[in-house]
Amino acid sequence: MKGLGGELVVGRHAVRELLAARRRGVRDVWMADTAEDREVASLASAAGVPLRRVNRARLDAEARTDAPQGVLAHAQALPESDLAGLCAAPRPFLLVVDGVTDPHNLGALLRTAEVGGATGAVLARHRAAHVTPTVTKAAAGAIEYLSMALVAGVPSALAELATKGVWTVGLDPNGDRSVYDLDLATEPLALVVGAEGEGLSRLSRARCDMLVAIPQRGRLASLNVSAAAAVAVFEIARRRAL
Amino acid sequence: MKGLGGELVVGRHAVRELLAARRRGVRDVWMADTAEDREVASLASAAGVPLRRVNRARLDAEARTDAPQGVLAHAQALPESDLAGLCAAPRPFLLVVDGVTDPHNLGALLRTAEVGGATGAVLARHRAAHVTPTVTKAAAGAIEYLSMALVAGVPSALAELATKGVWTVGLDPNGDRSVYDLDLATEPLALVVGAEGEGLSRLSRARCDMLVAIPQRGRLASLNVSAAAAVAVFEIARRRAL
Repeated sequence: MKGLGGELVVGRHAVRELLAARRRGVRDVWMADTAEDREVASLASAAGVPLRRVNRARLDAEARTDAPQGVLAHAQALPESDLAGLCAAPRPFLLVVDGVTDPHNLGALLRTAEVGGATGAVLARHRAAHVTPTVTKAAAGAIEYLSMALVAGVPSALAELATKGVWTVGLDPNGDRSVYDLDLATEPLALVVGAEGEGLSRLSRARCDMLVAIPQRGRLASLNVSAAAAVAVFEIARRRAL
Repeated sequence: MKGLGGELVVGRHAVRELLAARRRGVRDVWMADTAEDREVASLASAAGVPLRRVNRARLDAEARTDAPQGVLAHAQALPESDLAGLCAAPRPFLLVVDGVTDPHNLGALLRTAEVGGATGAVLARHRAAHVTPTVTKAAAGAIEYLSMALVAGVPSALAELATKGVWTVGLDPNGDRSVYDLDLATEPLALVVGAEGEGLSRLSRARCDMLVAIPQRGRLASLNVSAAAAVAVFEIARRRAL
């Protein structure tokens, strides 16, 4: 796989944002004959994108996701940023995804990052999930706005971020510091999150400038990766807004 | 459906916590012949619960979830609390689930509530998802520790909570107040979350003492329900720990 993918966009939110953002070309929109989404229809018409009515079974087969909601679109691949470009944002706030391969989790992470004001996301070219149809649906349009870079490996990307003055902060249940004591939140910062279960890779953990944990108040050991990332992203956003 | 369900528990984390918590009887544990989980095996042995090795296909058919991870258990139904019992906790912090029917979301919400220190959860008997095998897996053991009550309807439960001195706070993207300005966080409190897409029901919204929103920093309109609940639960937890 080269590139980010994302050519097949599935679900109402995702297609709506694809058409509204106008960041990439859209070949066509398919809507199931049983579906009615006037907003999608009107955005497609305004953008001069052909709308095809197809039967539900045909659409479901094309979508290759659960519950496509009767809407999908074919578009140009997502534009790819590079790490240097992401670092050039004013006060960068990046989400670095280390080894998350579950497409629902990856999509949820990108959605959380976008809503929380992250300025970009970094994905590993080989280990991470590609932007599959399921990722587009779970991301609910976030991929149309969030700048994303693919890197050969996360540990070397962390080293490069350090040379560019971006602090790298790993989210780790065994981190020695609470995310609520993260004084760096307002600095140029990359939050690094690992896969459900395994967490950050050993090398990524070693490369981070700091490891932070979310204080656990119950009996279970940890949150799932999407929930943990949401808490950390929004804690950083809260600090930045103070 | 009566009761909470939860008799079929699926996945490594979920079975591990079921055996460790010892809150309800466990009939047996099944482990796929291709799986190896020494911690589950040793917890089962310590609890005197029979461990059956079965072939993978047989286990997957019994599990009725995606990716059962080769482990499941049959247990007594989850014990049910009532609303008055939940309100009797010292400084109650309840999560009220209004119309969330997706089992992954419901399980994720319960996990987040437990890890965030909620003292109980309230589910609607008719509209909410039952604790299905998929819920047990997504909750990753939270159901073994979290007290849960089933109510006939969420709006009437909110009225009852008010009479017991518990503040009801709805999470709503159109809320007029930021979750970060929630001075009530340290009071007896019930956080009310609605379904993905539809949000809180009209009646629930009207009954809440207050509606709070999570400030959005990006272009998208909203977080998914699991991420939003995680942000709100942990903001309340943060306030309570100050």
